Amino acid sequence: MKNTIGNNLCITLFGESHGEMIGVVVDGLPAGIEINQELLEHQMRLRKAEGTISTGRHEDDLVRFVSGVFEGKTTGMPCCMVIENKDQHSKDYSKTKDIARPSHVDYVADVKYAGYQDYRGGGHFSGRLTAPLVAAGALAIQLLNQKGIFLGTHVKQLHTVIDDDFAEDEKVLLKQLTEINGKKFALINNEVESDMIMAIENARMNLDAVGGILETAILNFPVGIGEPTFDSIESKLSHALFSIGAVKGVEFGLGFGFADKYASEVNDQLKIKDGRIVTTTNNNGGINGGISNGMPIRFKTVVKPTPSIAKKQHSVNFKTMEDTDLEIVGRHDPAIIHRARVVVDSMVALTLVDCLMDTYGRNYFMGDKK
Amino acid sequence: MKNTIGNNLCITLFGESHGEMIGVVVDGLPAGIEINQELLEHQMRLRKAEGTISTGRHEDDLVRFVSGVFEGKTTGMPCCMVIENKDQHSKDYSKTKDIARPSHVDYVADVKYAGYQDYRGGGHFSGRLTAPLVAAGALAIQLLNQKGIFLGTHVKQLHTVIDDDFAEDEKVLLKQLTEINGKKFALINNEVESDMIMAIENARMNLDAVGGILETAILNFPVGIGEPTFDSIESKLSHALFSIGAVKGVEFGLGFGFADKYASEVNDQLKIKDGRIVTTTNNNGGINGGISNGMPIRFKTVVKPTPSIAKKQHSVNFKTMEDTDLEIVGRHDPAIIHRARVVVDSMVALTLVDCLMDTYGRNYFMGDKK
Amino acid sequence: MKNTIGNNLCITLFGESHGEMIGVVVDGLPAGIEINQELLEHQMRLRKAEGTISTGRHEDDLVRFVSGVFEGKTTGMPCCMVIENKDQHSKDYSKTKDIARPSHVDYVADVKYAGYQDYRGGGHFSGRLTAPLVAAGALAIQLLNQKGIFLGTHVKQLHTVIDDDFAEDEKVLLKQLTEINGKKFALINNEVESDMIMAIENARMNLDAVGGILETAILNFPVGIGEPTFDSIESKLSHALFSIGAVKGVEFGLGFGFADKYASEVNDQLKIKDGRIVTTTNNNGGINGGISNGMPIRFKTVVKPTPSIAKKQHSVNFKTMEDTDLEIVGRHDPAIIHRARVVVDSMVALTLVDCLMDTYGRNYFMGDKK
Amino acid sequence: MKNTIGNNLCITLFGESHGEMIGVVVDGLPAGIEINQELLEHQMRLRKAEGTISTGRHEDDLVRFVSGVFEGKTTGMPCCMVIENKDQHSKDYSKTKDIARPSHVDYVADVKYAGYQDYRGGGHFSGRLTAPLVAAGALAIQLLNQKGIFLGTHVKQLHTVIDDDFAEDEKVLLKQLTEINGKKFALINNEVESDMIMAIENARMNLDAVGGILETAILNFPVGIGEPTFDSIESKLSHALFSIGAVKGVEFGLGFGFADKYASEVNDQLKIKDGRIVTTTNNNGGINGGISNGMPIRFKTVVKPTPSIAKKQHSVNFKTMEDTDLEIVGRHDPAIIHRARVVVDSMVALTLVDCLMDTYGRNYFMGDKK
Repeated sequence: MKNTIGNNLCITLFGESHGEMIGVVVDGLPAGIEINQELLEHQMRLRKAEGTISTGRHEDDLVRFVSGVFEGKTTGMPCCMVIENKDQHSKDYSKTKDIARPSHVDYVADVKYAGYQDYRGGGHFSGRLTAPLVAAGALAIQLLNQKGIFLGTHVKQLHTVIDDDFAEDEKVLLKQLTEINGKKFALINNEVESDMIMAIENARMNLDAVGGILETAILNFPVGIGEPTFDSIESKLSHALFSIGAVKGVEFGLGFGFADKYASEVNDQLKIKDGRIVTTTNNNGGINGGISNGMPIRFKTVVKPTPSIAKKQHSVNFKTMEDTDLEIVGRHDPAIIHRARVVVDSMVALTLVDCLMDTYGRNYFMGDKK
Repeated sequence: MKNTIGNNLCITLFGESHGEMIGVVVDGLPAGIEINQELLEHQMRLRKAEGTISTGRHEDDLVRFVSGVFEGKTTGMPCCMVIENKDQHSKDYSKTKDIARPSHVDYVADVKYAGYQDYRGGGHFSGRLTAPLVAAGALAIQLLNQKGIFLGTHVKQLHTVIDDDFAEDEKVLLKQLTEINGKKFALINNEVESDMIMAIENARMNLDAVGGILETAILNFPVGIGEPTFDSIESKLSHALFSIGAVKGVEFGLGFGFADKYASEVNDQLKIKDGRIVTTTNNNGGINGGISNGMPIRFKTVVKPTPSIAKKQHSVNFKTMEDTDLEIVGRHDPAIIHRARVVVDSMVALTLVDCLMDTYGRNYFMGDKK
Repeated sequence: MKNTIGNNLCITLFGESHGEMIGVVVDGLPAGIEINQELLEHQMRLRKAEGTISTGRHEDDLVRFVSGVFEGKTTGMPCCMVIENKDQHSKDYSKTKDIARPSHVDYVADVKYAGYQDYRGGGHFSGRLTAPLVAAGALAIQLLNQKGIFLGTHVKQLHTVIDDDFAEDEKVLLKQLTEINGKKFALINNEVESDMIMAIENARMNLDAVGGILETAILNFPVGIGEPTFDSIESKLSHALFSIGAVKGVEFGLGFGFADKYASEVNDQLKIKDGRIVTTTNNNGGINGGISNGMPIRFKTVVKPTPSIAKKQHSVNFKTMEDTDLEIVGRHDPAIIHRARVVVDSMVALTLVDCLMDTYGRNYFMGDKK
Repeated sequence: MKNTIGNNLCITLFGESHGEMIGVVVDGLPAGIEINQELLEHQMRLRKAEGTISTGRHEDDLVRFVSGVFEGKTTGMPCCMVIENKDQHSKDYSKTKDIARPSHVDYVADVKYAGYQDYRGGGHFSGRLTAPLVAAGALAIQLLNQKGIFLGTHVKQLHTVIDDDFAEDEKVLLKQLTEINGKKFALINNEVESDMIMAIENARMNLDAVGGILETAILNFPVGIGEPTFDSIESKLSHALFSIGAVKGVEFGLGFGFADKYASEVNDQLKIKDGRIVTTTNNNGGINGGISNGMPIRFKTVVKPTPSIAKKQHSVNFKTMEDTDLEIVGRHDPAIIHRARVVVDSMVALTLVDCLMDTYGRNYFMGDKK
């Protein structure tokens, strides 16, 4: 399907950048879960544009529960959450609506939707639509946390600036996850933050934009989740991750680093530790044959530089079929990667809850009988 | 779902490495397609183990149509293809069945299936199961070819040996695709073949194994295919690709190469060429916002080194919960990447046909009225 | 899945009887369809409670398009429609919330949702939720009409009062469909209306309720739609119909009337008429082997008497596990069948569009290039 | 999808009446279930044609497990079961292949599959394809029985001959289910058997055929299963039931009998009995609002008379578009209802397991750790 994803926990996304409101329906939630309003607002805040390193569009992103919640708790019915659009500048777009912004969807959308797409601000393709995904994801994160499963994503690389790696040690990793989840700019090594901010500021001043690499870790995920052949955890996670606009690559564990290694160098050997089976390395990122092995799940996601830049670019008018130059006006992000990390966490959490329900059923997450 | 994939063209996989037979049901095929037996056999041959660079298990891999084909043509009904297993050596496995082969599914399968999994030769997880996928893929490739869409995958990198890139020019690319599809070892630059073979032979002699990177190109794919938000072409392709055993990363276009670039360096600017809208570069690999843009679709897939190696490794017995050493016996591949390329093509073709049917319906590929 | 239905045209339902708003997301609509506002409002009006034969709850049922429509036309993106709840009387429900209304969901919902369900007015189970279904259905009816396909449902039986049958002749049938679609109380023979109204009034005065049988006909549906084995038209239609609250039976063509007949009496023999293959009778209701045969599709749906009656009934308190008597207060419908007919039409239209897209793809309904 | 059904327990059907073999892939089975070979063979025998009241085609219907079973137990992997076709008479069909058998799929299949369908013996549409469904169903019945859930179907009506009803009392009902499941001709009142057999024999001698009504009961099904809005138990069961060839109607509980009743007559009032909530009547057939209420689930299914009769009928040649007469030759069933009952049980069991897994997950049915 198209705007619905998930077998058990299903989300359906709707809305456009300049419409009245955007939203998401989350279906399949267990009943009796008290909405963690604080977590929800925190997650929304992590996605929010702030300061000069992001778009000038400022939305308060208040999430309103339209259904599925009664007396503060989930009812087990579809939970529709909506967010109003308030700060849209639609006139920025009408002048150049027939000129394809390079690396954007304008041209393909025009073909696919025969010219009827809502072009204002990217319409349904806009990064604005990640706001309801983050709202939905907050509910999934809450479910995972209740089971002792924690996850987080940091900006491993922004342009040429590199953050430290996640720790191999699970206790240290838990501490790192807690810390980055609290930060607006998710870094393990705080000292690189100024360099990253500077890289974004430079890009902005050059009417340009930068991208980077996100790294995600998931701790305490149970062994044996994921379905061969076609619903491996890697398949389902990558499916969800590539739904995020600027994502162009996903690698698990060592990923592309496997290419020039010998098996003997990168196989994850096993041992017994504290009565539990663990691997001595984690090159496979916690997944064997598409199934979780109990080690931290780890993967990287590359986010391309935001294509909407003010620099003059060459393009075409797809209505008149003429070559033309284009200088994009309007408010745009010189970088989105520091905001995208919480979108990644959201899609990941939604996917993992769905995977867990495949094995354990919806009642696994159910609240106690009222 | 688990062993079924596809919305319109659906495949269902079954069988185990050492079972009587393995097979696939392809549902949703249009009626009236004459089976291209030559193409099917060619594709099966490309996957086949041969010489010393692959496993010593030799199967004739004869594909038998059990249903869905009548008088040599598809009927529109589910097409079940089966392949008999003939050369299995099951006793190799029973001795060490409770010892987890590093980076393999043994331990996670034991947890997931409560000890009831068929451990012989990897059971349902075996690379042997890619044989029916290739058979199914051959039908999909045939459908694409009939629409003038061509695809192919070459071994871009094997261990440290690098092949040339696909050409940007579409005519040259078409020639390259034709050539590599004819070769057992798919390379653009034939001169690197001996180095690659040597790398595999070395690995084999060291009781080790190597992996690498596959690069795929798809030519003449129409503009406007792929569904936002959650069924983007990238989402569906990656979902399918990560279903293949050893795949640990997928990147489209420039992929992870986007991380340290400015938007102005990597945005694909547009122009009119021969009355058609094209991009002057193809860093996005033919996909914008998850939708095809008419340029060649290009992506890379990393295949980790085959984990089954004869070298002594450390592991655990998951029944007795004891540490142990393990030297894997039996016949194994020192490399599978040169065989995996046709599996990638198969999963890609099946996925693309499915995407095309989302937009155009099943009748798009239908034969003329008899 | 649960609150999402459809392979190609997918609807997702949300909301509760006494929540802020209810709504539906329609995904998979072709782009460029001008919303027929008049038809939409007409359909909503057909469902609306009016007079003394329906509930005293009066909602204006204004449908607001939140997404997926731009400049009056569909964009091809998910179309979210919402309807505000304004006339809810929640206090009617809190007193008796732990007492199971006979033949209602109260008890099963309490078990299923562990006591967290929104019990007010039936919550998500309320007939109120059929309002967004009718809104969604109006779009589907519009698509069918554009292809020359017409459908309609009349009240074949209400309690013991019987309406005439649909005509066999297709021209007369078209006229009948047009007429009943214009009427608030859908009858072929207007003379039975007063008897039906009287039957409802009697039930109301006796604090009781009545049900009946709806009959639906679809004209000009193309030959060859419906998928063996498991997505037959009958399977998909019945799936959709049984989603409607009070429906307890569905029969196609002669239905249960087949039981005591000989094949020779009820087989639909064929002939050539005006260059087209037709059947001389239509006992199979336009469907053979689950596939449309070009004759009018015909089926009947039984709607049980509304279970919410004010008469004293015996029941239990499912919290205290005690026997108790119950007199339901609040506003209720002494009959819903005359309002249910448009819900049936809506679910049918959504399903048929979905079936057509299986064969012809989404682009079948696409608007002309703008 | 088409030939795959189920969210958690998924079956995929393949094969044709006159092909080499027919079969089914059952995916999503829990691991560690010992195949009850005796039950499987018993179920196959119940479906088998025997004596003069059924087709003269005699198949031994030996079910071969191709995958998913290891050492006699399920592995959790897709379980493919195949059955060879041995007694096909293909030449019976070629002469009249372009003449539409009345009430059959010949004409619609010709349109849908553009003339490429396998017409021999009905191809994929043949009742022969119910054999693998019964094999799959036997596994599902086994799972249900392990949870103390029992089901059965009797021939409530054959032409004008009527069987007794299922008992309301659950102990008596259990006894009835056990008895009818043991019988080739499933009747509660054995005394009507001779009349039913005679009705079939009469039809056969008149070159005609008869149908009837099946009634199914399911005992001990847990409260709270079924998903609003679109995956109610009634929706999922009817979807599955209408997949069976000759089924033209399904009604739950009182079904069409609700039409002329007052709510006060048919509402199922509740009481506490032995510490459990029960209803004093069961007019809703164990289902409220699409969700199981713990009472026996009861429904009726109408099976139309087998349309393949030897009597002369009027028809058309759909290739030449000419009117013609037709006398069908070959071996056909004068009645299938007594064989269809086990197909109904099979589809029902598969559906109920699927519904249970929605709530409880696949592990609900899992075997103990080996």
